[in-house]
Amino acid sequence: MSEKIKVGILGYGNLGRGAELAISQQPDMELVAVFSRRGSVETVDKNVKSLHIDDATDYVDKIDVMILCGGSATDLPEQTPAFARLFNTVDSYDTHALIPEYFESVNEVSKESGHVNIISVGWDPGLFSINRVMAEAVLQEGNTYTFWGKGLSQGHSDAVRRVEGVKAGVQYTLPSNEAMDEVRQGNNPELTKTSSHKRECYVVLEADADPKVVEKAIKTMPNYFDEYDTTVHFITEEELQRDHNKMPHGGFVIHSGKTGTDKNDQIIEYSLKLESNPEFTASVLVAYARAAYRLSKEGQSGAKTVYEVGPGYIHPKSPAELRKEYL
Amino acid sequence: MSEKIKVGILGYGNLGRGAELAISQQPDMELVAVFSRRGSVETVDKNVKSLHIDDATDYVDKIDVMILCGGSATDLPEQTPAFARLFNTVDSYDTHALIPEYFESVNEVSKESGHVNIISVGWDPGLFSINRVMAEAVLQEGNTYTFWGKGLSQGHSDAVRRVEGVKAGVQYTLPSNEAMDEVRQGNNPELTKTSSHKRECYVVLEADADPKVVEKAIKTMPNYFDEYDTTVHFITEEELQRDHNKMPHGGFVIHSGKTGTDKNDQIIEYSLKLESNPEFTASVLVAYARAAYRLSKEGQSGAKTVYEVGPGYIHPKSPAELRKEYL
Repeated sequence: MSEKIKVGILGYGNLGRGAELAISQQPDMELVAVFSRRGSVETVDKNVKSLHIDDATDYVDKIDVMILCGGSATDLPEQTPAFARLFNTVDSYDTHALIPEYFESVNEVSKESGHVNIISVGWDPGLFSINRVMAEAVLQEGNTYTFWGKGLSQGHSDAVRRVEGVKAGVQYTLPSNEAMDEVRQGNNPELTKTSSHKRECYVVLEADADPKVVEKAIKTMPNYFDEYDTTVHFITEEELQRDHNKMPHGGFVIHSGKTGTDKNDQIIEYSLKLESNPEFTASVLVAYARAAYRLSKEGQSGAKTVYEVGPGYIHPKSPAELRKEYL
Repeated sequence: MSEKIKVGILGYGNLGRGAELAISQQPDMELVAVFSRRGSVETVDKNVKSLHIDDATDYVDKIDVMILCGGSATDLPEQTPAFARLFNTVDSYDTHALIPEYFESVNEVSKESGHVNIISVGWDPGLFSINRVMAEAVLQEGNTYTFWGKGLSQGHSDAVRRVEGVKAGVQYTLPSNEAMDEVRQGNNPELTKTSSHKRECYVVLEADADPKVVEKAIKTMPNYFDEYDTTVHFITEEELQRDHNKMPHGGFVIHSGKTGTDKNDQIIEYSLKLESNPEFTASVLVAYARAAYRLSKEGQSGAKTVYEVGPGYIHPKSPAELRKEYL
């Protein structure tokens, strides 16, 4: 291994922390510094340099790729175009509907600055997006289905906790097994987000609360639960802390296609079962940081998505090694 | 849609036939001609031009990509370097151990002729190879497992049919469910090809044959069956024709990794369940023919594998459309 890829992390919430951990697992990368609006933060490895975000400009020559770990609502729309002027970057921008204009705004800067800036990296958008496109490219006659879960949903957990009588609680989204089986059998069902997912709540009650009233309030909550098959479990505070302290997530992309004169069924399925959603998303970002570095070395520039990046670019080994050992 | 991509097929066995069918499903491709050593062949669509392989040289300006549908043992090692002089190509070369030297021999020609020649396309090597590399790139701490089946194995079916007393029969390779469950639970078991697969035979007996003797002869056959958990089912000729007349295959790539200080389990699983193996493999080849065409248009040349090809290149839609509709 020659010189290591020098990586920076900008933003240090769950995702930034996951990126620090993921970089430490990669053989060809070193973490130069973590930058945060809070200034110095408590990193997992105490030896990691932790600086204020304003100091990042001093690191233009010391960092090959900056991993942007801010949120999609307000951080990234501002940070990615700003830092694309200075660095190769990867980010996890995930507001699906706004991706086209986001791409354009980043690309304008990248083309000028000559950097490679890969946007919307993670698992959805990201690995799931790749699977949707590849499956459909191969099997044009067919349908692609995405199911999410089992996953902790922050928004829905917050909604549960706002119900009167609820002391604490979490909500998981689960795919409907019946719906997935229909898809796997090649039946090409018509599914909505509502008919293909279920919701499960684990609730700790306030001392004086009536479980029947709380359960009804949750199940009938408009937008959040009323249209779903929802189950409410009442548990103790100890159980909540012991069994529900992680951020699991995952999901399935299933493409059911047909080929030939016999209309043969061909099923492609991709799934993730993640015990830590932020650590996994960060791991994907870190692998794509390698691609940003390599593409930049090749003389490329501009905003990119996972669709433009050859799979070998994200792996530490060389093309010759991959051909020999993995093909 | 502007002008269609002009595609040729060289070799017309099960794979070539599958390619003809797959091209007819693609919105942006047209099949110019099928070339075969046998000269004119019976194509599915009677309007398809069918020519002798020697006529291919007349089509250098009329074909954008030639899909090479010969076998890996003798056809492709000769045909791909020869036709890489004249055309952009894709092939399904699958002798895993010899891929590095095969790549070099093709690349030498491609670089000279200026064509794009994508080798070893299909599902294994191909889509499975992509999943092995991407999963490991993201989760460096972990193990990747490949399981094959349920699949009809030509070599093992032939072996069954050579047993005395067997009139007809087929053999399927199946992954062991116990082994897959171990992997999915993140237990990182030590598996061999033998301990992770089972074999199932469906046999029609000769009138005078003793089923006990035949079953024992199959189960104890060295190299083929003796080390495997093998089941033999006796069926009638009608059942064989009715229930076992397809070429199904498929398999699983499962990567079990760990992230973070808590060693969280992260499982990535990719699977294929194919009712027709040759039609699916051909469909992958056809999608990568599009990539060969586009890369060539961009001015690239050389031998490539699926590792160098961005996923978006195989889909008919434009990068902007993919960002908007699939990311």
